[in-house]
This record gives sequence, structure tokens and C-alpha cells, in this order.
Amino acid sequence: MKPRVIRKIHRADLDLVHQLGEMGVATVHEAQGRSGLMKPYMRPIFPNARVAGTALTVSCHPGDNMMIHAALSVCHAGDVLVVAPVADSTDGMFGDLLAESSRAHGVLGLVIDAGVRDTFELEEMKFPVWAKAIHAQGTVKATAGSVNVDVVCAGALVRPGDAIIGDRDGVVVVPRERVDEVCLLSQQRMAREEQTRERLKQGELGFDFYGMKDKLKALGVEFED
Amino acid sequence: MKPRVIRKIHRADLDLVHQLGEMGVATVHEAQGRSGLMKPYMRPIFPNARVAGTALTVSCHPGDNMMIHAALSVCHAGDVLVVAPVADSTDGMFGDLLAESSRAHGVLGLVIDAGVRDTFELEEMKFPVWAKAIHAQGTVKATAGSVNVDVVCAGALVRPGDAIIGDRDGVVVVPRERVDEVCLLSQQRMAREEQTRERLKQGELGFDFYGMKDKLKALGVEFED
Amino acid sequence: MKPRVIRKIHRADLDLVHQLGEMGVATVHEAQGRSGLMKPYMRPIFPNARVAGTALTVSCHPGDNMMIHAALSVCHAGDVLVVAPVADSTDGMFGDLLAESSRAHGVLGLVIDAGVRDTFELEEMKFPVWAKAIHAQGTVKATAGSVNVDVVCAGALVRPGDAIIGDRDGVVVVPRERVDEVCLLSQQRMAREEQTRERLKQGELGFDFYGMKDKLKALGVEFED
Amino acid sequence: MKPRVIRKIHRADLDLVHQLGEMGVATVHEAQGRSGLMKPYMRPIFPNARVAGTALTVSCHPGDNMMIHAALSVCHAGDVLVVAPVADSTDGMFGDLLAESSRAHGVLGLVIDAGVRDTFELEEMKFPVWAKAIHAQGTVKATAGSVNVDVVCAGALVRPGDAIIGDRDGVVVVPRERVDEVCLLSQQRMAREEQTRERLKQGELGFDFYGMKDKLKALGVEFED
Amino acid sequence: MKPRVIRKIHRADLDLVHQLGEMGVATVHEAQGRSGLMKPYMRPIFPNARVAGTALTVSCHPGDNMMIHAALSVCHAGDVLVVAPVADSTDGMFGDLLAESSRAHGVLGLVIDAGVRDTFELEEMKFPVWAKAIHAQGTVKATAGSVNVDVVCAGALVRPGDAIIGDRDGVVVVPRERVDEVCLLSQQRMAREEQTRERLKQGELGFDFYGMKDKLKALGVEFED
Amino acid sequence: MKPRVIRKIHRADLDLVHQLGEMGVATVHEAQGRSGLMKPYMRPIFPNARVAGTALTVSCHPGDNMMIHAALSVCHAGDVLVVAPVADSTDGMFGDLLAESSRAHGVLGLVIDAGVRDTFELEEMKFPVWAKAIHAQGTVKATAGSVNVDVVCAGALVRPGDAIIGDRDGVVVVPRERVDEVCLLSQQRMAREEQTRERLKQGELGFDFYGMKDKLKALGVEFED
Repeated sequence: MKPRVIRKIHRADLDLVHQLGEMGVATVHEAQGRSGLMKPYMRPIFPNARVAGTALTVSCHPGDNMMIHAALSVCHAGDVLVVAPVADSTDGMFGDLLAESSRAHGVLGLVIDAGVRDTFELEEMKFPVWAKAIHAQGTVKATAGSVNVDVVCAGALVRPGDAIIGDRDGVVVVPRERVDEVCLLSQQRMAREEQTRERLKQGELGFDFYGMKDKLKALGVEFED
Repeated sequence: MKPRVIRKIHRADLDLVHQLGEMGVATVHEAQGRSGLMKPYMRPIFPNARVAGTALTVSCHPGDNMMIHAALSVCHAGDVLVVAPVADSTDGMFGDLLAESSRAHGVLGLVIDAGVRDTFELEEMKFPVWAKAIHAQGTVKATAGSVNVDVVCAGALVRPGDAIIGDRDGVVVVPRERVDEVCLLSQQRMAREEQTRERLKQGELGFDFYGMKDKLKALGVEFED
Repeated sequence: MKPRVIRKIHRADLDLVHQLGEMGVATVHEAQGRSGLMKPYMRPIFPNARVAGTALTVSCHPGDNMMIHAALSVCHAGDVLVVAPVADSTDGMFGDLLAESSRAHGVLGLVIDAGVRDTFELEEMKFPVWAKAIHAQGTVKATAGSVNVDVVCAGALVRPGDAIIGDRDGVVVVPRERVDEVCLLSQQRMAREEQTRERLKQGELGFDFYGMKDKLKALGVEFED
Repeated sequence: MKPRVIRKIHRADLDLVHQLGEMGVATVHEAQGRSGLMKPYMRPIFPNARVAGTALTVSCHPGDNMMIHAALSVCHAGDVLVVAPVADSTDGMFGDLLAESSRAHGVLGLVIDAGVRDTFELEEMKFPVWAKAIHAQGTVKATAGSVNVDVVCAGALVRPGDAIIGDRDGVVVVPRERVDEVCLLSQQRMAREEQTRERLKQGELGFDFYGMKDKLKALGVEFED
Repeated sequence: MKPRVIRKIHRADLDLVHQLGEMGVATVHEAQGRSGLMKPYMRPIFPNARVAGTALTVSCHPGDNMMIHAALSVCHAGDVLVVAPVADSTDGMFGDLLAESSRAHGVLGLVIDAGVRDTFELEEMKFPVWAKAIHAQGTVKATAGSVNVDVVCAGALVRPGDAIIGDRDGVVVVPRERVDEVCLLSQQRMAREEQTRERLKQGELGFDFYGMKDKLKALGVEFED
Repeated sequence: MKPRVIRKIHRADLDLVHQLGEMGVATVHEAQGRSGLMKPYMRPIFPNARVAGTALTVSCHPGDNMMIHAALSVCHAGDVLVVAPVADSTDGMFGDLLAESSRAHGVLGLVIDAGVRDTFELEEMKFPVWAKAIHAQGTVKATAGSVNVDVVCAGALVRPGDAIIGDRDGVVVVPRERVDEVCLLSQQRMAREEQTRERLKQGELGFDFYGMKDKLKALGVEFED
């Protein structure tokens, strides 16, 4: 495949994406059938980082951040940068200057399967980042890559314009055409969980109301005093 | 071995366990002869998490949290859940609903050789957790396991009712029948350390009062200007 | 090589080292030609840890902290302990007592390619540490090693007296004879970055002012709508 | 997404796939623009394992191999099983019995982002496997999953029917609709490499015939005696 | 716990242990209820290594092999050394001289949660070893430890005299008092597997004879053409 | 530091280097005081790989092999390529064409803190390689680096012209000015080991002739029946 920068993409509806963001990663991941979750090594660089936006994808050479600059030339307000080097890397490909530039154009945050630096300044800016590593290691601007193509980032397939939701539990991707459905399923799940929470607080046991005792006995589990 | 849920176990004395908790993981680990410590990948999910209680052990299939529900059906106030999947896993097997249920029954915290989710909510609840990973990945409720059997969790043998102490330095297990002795040894160690601390603050050197210079010379170390 | 403790070393100028510390790890690493950075697994034990001092190096057996005591017998105010076991280890070789002793003699912090413990107390003392692991695992005082010899710590060569700068982005080493030059280069870099930051805040794109579009086209990248 | 088993898929042409297999992973990966390669942790379980076939994809719960059985009910001769658990796992989900069954139906090999067992027997059968781990850990048959849906396996997107090429250098995926083009590009690359090899054997230097000296000088590299 | 060397232990019956060894790790692990398996990072140092013997356990300081020497002073013919340092280590604690000594006293092999060296010579001697790492890193003989106490090795509890079975699939521990029962269960399992193998070779599908289609439909899996 | 290619370096004496190679990595590492060993993740790509030569060092950008070409333009017969990218990488930076070119100029092998590819062909050529990963991932030729400068490779400091010894136990570096001394020390060690081996074969115990029983008792170890 030839490297390329695609300017026009279809993006998920931002209002729905924000609703997904308020419900959080665990709920959305469950609601869409336990799919779309990135690997657990993707961690926020400060504890209360949260983001919900549309994917602006970058496929690039490890240790080379030129294509992130290229991505900012075609970004829209509400986008989240999703950077996937073509091979394993922990280099600090993004820092506070790129965050300033991102913010000036309405880009909400960064999800990067590599490293990030200037993390003290990024927290001061409240610019949310999920990364594999924090590392000052500098990068070059020398090799070609692509913007707004399908990428695999930290084990999840991300297509341009998909919804990206990040919080302390990780990062989940919702395909842009399923945002409406997943939003509804997430709300239903939250309502059910609210009821369950009340019962559990009162001391009822999931073990009892899910009927697990019979299930365990059927599986051969013995209960002993 | 057949899977089984054991209801009645011997538990370490909770008063002594709390005393161990106040002295902290590093002291207790040293006092009992540098044993019982879990692997360093077990990290608290918020910085000031602390726990001291008796082990409620769970042996389960990776990615399946049914046996955690079963464990809550036989828990006592003062217990700490110790969850050990039979194979490597980072799935988020425990979240805020299970924490609500745990708290409703007096379970003090969780030590899990796998993942945990809803970590923002867990910190708000001040429900302490030590885990291998933070991951939203959901689990099923389909396979048998055991409650209150001996398990190996993160490299440490844990028997039901053993004392579990967790803080920022990790998690240590004290065999239930040694809690009395280890408590005394920990207190003695703390007293000695207090004296040492004062001398070090005054500028004395461990190098001098431990007589290390002679020892190093005997080992062939040369001192050069 | 025979194990040895070297008392007198050449140290980088502390005023310059402090200036480097104020500019931070990412800037200094770039200014000296992207060299001297330790591996990304070296993390501060609390978020706002910062240090800038001269290297007091320790080469020791894994799981044995006797040579750290020996190092404190030859330290100077302004030093930073740099501890490099001769083989991989995560043991907690340093705790609050050693920190008290370090502080009493003017040692500013610790960089250790192994574990550390008493991390709650170390944060209370505001004693900055960069480590590979947090682990209560205790150590012995039984085997010979060296103080103030060249070591490789977390992938970086450190010679006694070199400048050690640590912050949230990691740890960088500046050779003691280059501190003057690197300080100047860092200041120049910061000035340039300040100008760039202003332009980016105004909405200018690095993509445009670095002339990347032509470069990408020359590399065969296609731009599509 | 609902779990599902899809019986009819489009497969890459097997003759072309075999030609790709003869040219090997490194060549094919380069020819298609350095894409489609799985992570380096995917290793063959015996040194001379080689495979070239069409992807029969399996998305399953970690530690549960029921969907591999389901996949064999819809396989075609020439397929390669590509198994991607929805979360990290090292369990031995496949052994010699499944290999017998695979072979009886013409399935050529296995690529699994998890563990494998009975590796001695698999080598005796010359049944090629690429896996993340070798582990005897047994699995259950309890939870739903999907067959012949798009999966991400070891960092690479695999769609049902894509070409899967494996050898000692790893595993590469070629999209089924590009097999023709990539085959041609691979042959061209091999022809070019053959010429280069001859020149290099004669002692010519890539440094010279690629004109690197001028390039390096332009990049500021100094040549010193 | 005080360090100690225990001379007399109860050992599993060697004839039964050898029978377990012939059936292999995967079968024995399954037969005893999927328990007792060491972590997948434990690999044989040559492909056809096999061992079956009784555990001679060593708990020692990382990087110190004195207690292995102590263990050989109390070994019996038919033992397998099981070495578990008290903290993570990859040091090469065992080499060809210790193998010569082991062999002279009837010790059959080594299982070590650390490193090993002289691996070329060990293969020439056909001395089987399972280890976490191959590393020339030398060790000292300076600190106390224990012989023939319960240890956790690579995630598995090993008690002195337990059966240790190792092959290409890993290492499994059978409690000494269960050897008889597990031997019988393993034989039954092998007989069943032999029948299954024949059916699979004939082209029958596990999917059919395990009745999985109904099970999958009950779990909500859809079958599509 | 400016990137540079240094043409003339001092090399260790090749006759002595070959003698070191015959004695092997473990012996040489011990003889020079347990120093100079690379990390255990550096593995030979085929079991019987051996090398002994003088270091031709390369410092380069991850994923960019241009400087390896540059190194071959200044190599001497008897050299071993030592490639150290400035940041973590597993890319396959070296393959069979570079091996052909290396061999044409007398370069004996490769030690690379990154990946390698064409491993089947490299084994056929008997071109020995020690690497962190086997990966087909291709690289670019775009960024500057240095040849024949000091590098840290897999945790070991390597200076141009140092002796590099590799075998199945790993890779060790001997400083070029110590080759004579280390050769002698290695021979002495081998002679001593030969005597020890004979005694051990006869059934004598290191435990006895090293006097460990008294040492253990002095350390507080109890002997129990």
C-alpha cells in the first residue's frame, strides 16, 4: 500500500460520542459485546485523564513523528489522535509543543502505541494521553507514513472517524457506524447496573440472585463446612 | 482435585492482623525472615491504598469471575479477597459492583493476580485493590473453581485465613499460625529501626556502626583516593 | 577488575547541573544530541519527583545493599546515588533509613536499576527516587562491589561525577566535561521552543512552517480528499 | 456484535498463496509495503516450520477452545487456523488431537495469539504452529465466540480468507484481494535481491552503490581517521 | 522462618513417577484437575529434554548458589533439583560442574526459576534443565537459605519429595501423596484420548461428537452462510 | 555529540581473541571478574552459533540500518558487528544480503540489540547472530548515526576494537587492553575447573571441599533429620 494522507473522512456523531464518554470505557466495552478494547499496557499519563472523540489515525515509522504533524494539517475539532507505529517502539514521539498545536485546532487528546514526553507539562495543560511508555527519547522527521487509514493500535482495529473513549480503565474503540446502537445499549446497561448496585448495597448477593449455587453444583463444585 | 467451596476456615486474629497492617509490608516481610512477599508487579490502584485482613481465597479460570461471587457467599467481616486464576490473565475480573457487594459484607479489599476495572469508582469508594493490570476487559461466569483452598497468588502461597497486608510497597502474606510471633518480631524490628534512624539523622554512617570497612577489606575491596 | 571504593572524583559544576535540572530531561537529552537517556522502565516513585546532581556510582551484587552504605561514606553534598546491580534484579535495595542517611550527608536522590521500598515514607520525606520496581523484598550485606567506577545503569553509561537529571520523563546523564556546553545548547533550544510554541498556539502548523508537504510528496506520499 | 459462525467466505487463490509461501515472510512483507506482519513474539514451535494458506479465523474467550472445534466444522483444505482470544492469554488451547483433526480436513497449520501444547507430538507430525507460548495449561469448552469474522491477531488485522504466510522470521498476512499484486511485487523484489547478492558477494558495498556517503555527509555525519 | 537443611523427607514412589513421566506433562496436568503447572516462561534448554523424579527443593538468595551445593549433600538417586530464589533473578546459578556432581549422585535434572549456564556442555551431557533464562552471569556463595522446605517455583507450590515431570510442554508438580491416584487418572485419560484420536483421524469432528452445535446455539451463536 | 564514522581504531589482538572464544563466554566472564556480560535476552539465532572477534560498533536510529552499511565500509577482517539502536526496537535491521556483504569483507558475525531476519538463510550460511528478536520487520535508510564510537549494547559498554565473544550462554565483552590478562586468567580458571570436575565426577561434594557446612552453621542454618 502506498503511503497517503486522506483529508475527508466520515466521523461518528460527536454528541453521541460524548455520551459514550460519560458512560466510560468499561460500560461501553461491555455494551458492544466485549470488543474494541486496547491492550492493558495503554495507560493514562495522569489519573483523571478522560477523552471522547473521533479517531484521527496515524500510521508511522517507529521513532519518527512527521506524520503526526501531517495529521494535524487535516484534523477537525473533536478528533483524538490515534498513533500506531508499524513496529514496537517506546520513543517519546509527542510532547507539549504538539499538544499546543493539537489544542489550537480542537484535537482533544492522544492515544499512542509508543511513548510520550513532557508529561509534567501535558498534565498542567490537562491534555489527556494514553501511551505505552513515558520516555524523553526524541524522534526524527524523515520517513513516510499515512494519515486516516485503518490502523491496529495496541491490539484494536481503529478506522478513521471511529469513536475513541479513554479513561482510567483504558481505551475502547466504537466503530463509527455502531455509535448510535452502542450508545443505547450502554444506557440500558447502566440502568440495569444501577438497580443491581442498590440490591448489592442492601446485602443481597449476586451469588443468590444470579442462581449460581445451582450452576456450580451442576458443574460439580462441592460445598463443604 | 475436585472444585469446592469451603465455608468454615480458621482465621488469623484480626486485632493482631491490624497491628501488622500498621507496621507495613516491608517491616512484616523482614520480621518473618524475608518470606511471603508477592511479586513486584502487584501494584495498588491508588497511591494510599492500605489493607490488613484475613485471606478469603479464590482459585478460578482466567476471564471468569463466578467464583468471586461464590466467595462473597461465605465471607466474614475482616476478610480480604485473594484471587488467583489458574493461568496468566490480565482481564478485569472485578469492578465497582463487586466492590459494593464486598463492602456490604465487610470484605476490606482485593488482591488479584489479574486485572481490575472501574478503578476511578474504586478509588472514590476508597476500596483498596492490588492487581497485575488495570483493564476494562469483561469476564464470563461459566466455569467451576474453588473458594478457601490453598492458592499461589503472584508467587506467594496463600492459605485461607492467613493474614494479608498490603500497602504501597506490595503485598505480604503471614501464615495464620505465625501471626502472633511475627507481630512481636515486627515490633522489635520497628524499635530497633527507630534507634538506627536517630543515629543516621545525626550523621552517623551505617558503614561505620555496622563495621563494614573491615568486612569489605576482608572481601578484597580496595579503597583509593 | 578488582572491586574498589574510590574516594576522590571530579564532579560536574553544581550550579550548571542545577540549571540543567530546571530545563528538564527532554530538553537536555535533545540538546546533547539525543544521548544519555536511561530506559523507559525507570520511573519516579511519586509524580513530582525532580533531581539534579552529580553521580555517586555503585556497582553491586543483586539483592545486596552493602555497597550503598559504602558509597555514603565517600559522598559529597549535591550527589545523586546511581545504583547498578551487575545482573537483573527487582529487590528493594533502598528504603527510608538509607534515605535519612543520604539526606544527612547532602545526597539529593536515588537512581536505581532495581527496586526500592518504604515508598510511602520516601514520598513524605520528598526524597526523589527513580527505580525499575517498587518492592519490599529485603536484601543482604554480604558481597563486594565498587563505588565511583563507571557503570551502565538502565542502558546508560554513567561515570562518577557526571550530571544526573531526573523528572517525570525519565533520567538523563550528561558527561561531566560536557555540562557547560550542554547547558548552553539547552538554553538555546528552550528559546527556540518558546518561539515555536507561540506560533503553534496561534494556529500555525508545524506541517507548514517545517515545509513538510513538499518533503512528504518527495517521499511518495499521496494526498487524497 | 453477536457471536457467529460464518460458513462461506472468499478465499485467496491457493496457487498464488503457495507462491508467496515459497518467497518467504520477509520478502512478502517488504513487497506489500512493510505491512501485515504479526508481532515478533509469535514464534514457530520447531525451527523449520513453514506454512502458506488461507485464514480460517477464530475469535474466542481466553482459555476456551470450543470455537476452534467450531472452526474445523466449516474449514476447507488449504486453510490455516488463525486463533485470536479477546484478551491476553498463554493457555495451551491446541494440542495433538486438534492437529489430527485439522490434518484430516486439510487444515495446514495454526497461528495462535496464545499457547499451544503437545509440542513434541506436533513436531513429529510436522504440523506447523506459530504461538505466543508453549504451555500445557488446559482449557475449557464453555463460552461463545465467532468463526470467520475479522480479527486482530498478534497486532495484525486478519480477515477470513486472507493469505497467511509463516516461516522462521514470523507470520505475515496478505489481504485476499491483493494476493495477485503482492505475488508479482515479491517476484520483482526477489529478482532485484538476486542481483544485489551477486554484487555484494563480489565485495561491492551497498554503502557505495546506494550512494550513502553523500547522503550521510548531507545529514552532517563526519568521517574521521 | 529460620533457614534449614532437612535431610530426611518422604519421596513419591519412583516407579510411579517414571510412569507419569512417560505420559507427559500435558496429560498429567489434565489428569490431576489442571493444577500444578509451572509458568510458561520455564523452558527446556534443549528440545528433547525430559525428566521425571522427586523434588529436592532449594530456597535461596538470588545470585547465590551455595544452597544448591548444600542440597547435593542430602540428595538421593532419582531426585530432581527444584531451585526457587526468594526474588526475581536471571543469574546463571548452575553450570556443568554442578551437573557433573548432580549426576555423580543420581540427581536426574534441574528445574530453576532463574538462569543456567554452560548450556552447550549440559546438552552434550544430556542433563535436562528447565529455566527462566540462559545466562553466563556468575553467582556468589555467601548467604543462607533452605533445602527441602516447601517452595513456590515459577508459580507452582513444590514440597520436598513431590513428583516433578518435565518435557517440551513445561513442568508439572504432582503432590507426593497423590501420585498413585494421578497415575491411574492419567492412564485412563490416555486411553480415552487414543480412542478420540482414531475418530478424529477418520474425519469425525469433535464439534459433532461433543454436541457443540446445540451448545453454541444455546449460547446465542448464529450460523450464517 | 555529532554523528561520525571513525575509520581507524585500535583492535584487540585476534589470536588472543580466538583463544578467548575457545574458552567460552561463562569462563571469560568469570575470569575478568564477572563483568562485561550482555543481558540474557540476547540469544543466538541457531544453537551452535559461536563467534570471537573485534567490535565494529554501530550507534543508529531504531528501524534504520543505513549505518550498518556505513560500518561495512570501514570494517576489517576479524570484526564482529555490534549494533546498538539509540532506543528500544525489535525491527529486523539485518538480513542475508548484509550477511553476504559482511562475509565478503571478513566480518565474522553480528550482535544486535534489536531484531534480525532471513534467519533460515543465516543459519544455512552459518553466519552467527545474537539478537533480541527475530522479526521480518523492514527498516529504512534515512537517519544519521555513528560508527566506531563507544556504545551500550544490551546493558554492556562496548568500545570499538574490544573483544566480543558469543556462544550459547550469551555475549561477553572484553576491553581491548585487558585481552592479554583475561586470556591468562581464563586459562587458569579452566585448569582449576578441570581438577574440580574430576573430583566431582568421583562423587566428592563441593559442599565438603569448599567447607560450606561450617559456613552455613555460622550463618545460622540448622541441619535437621
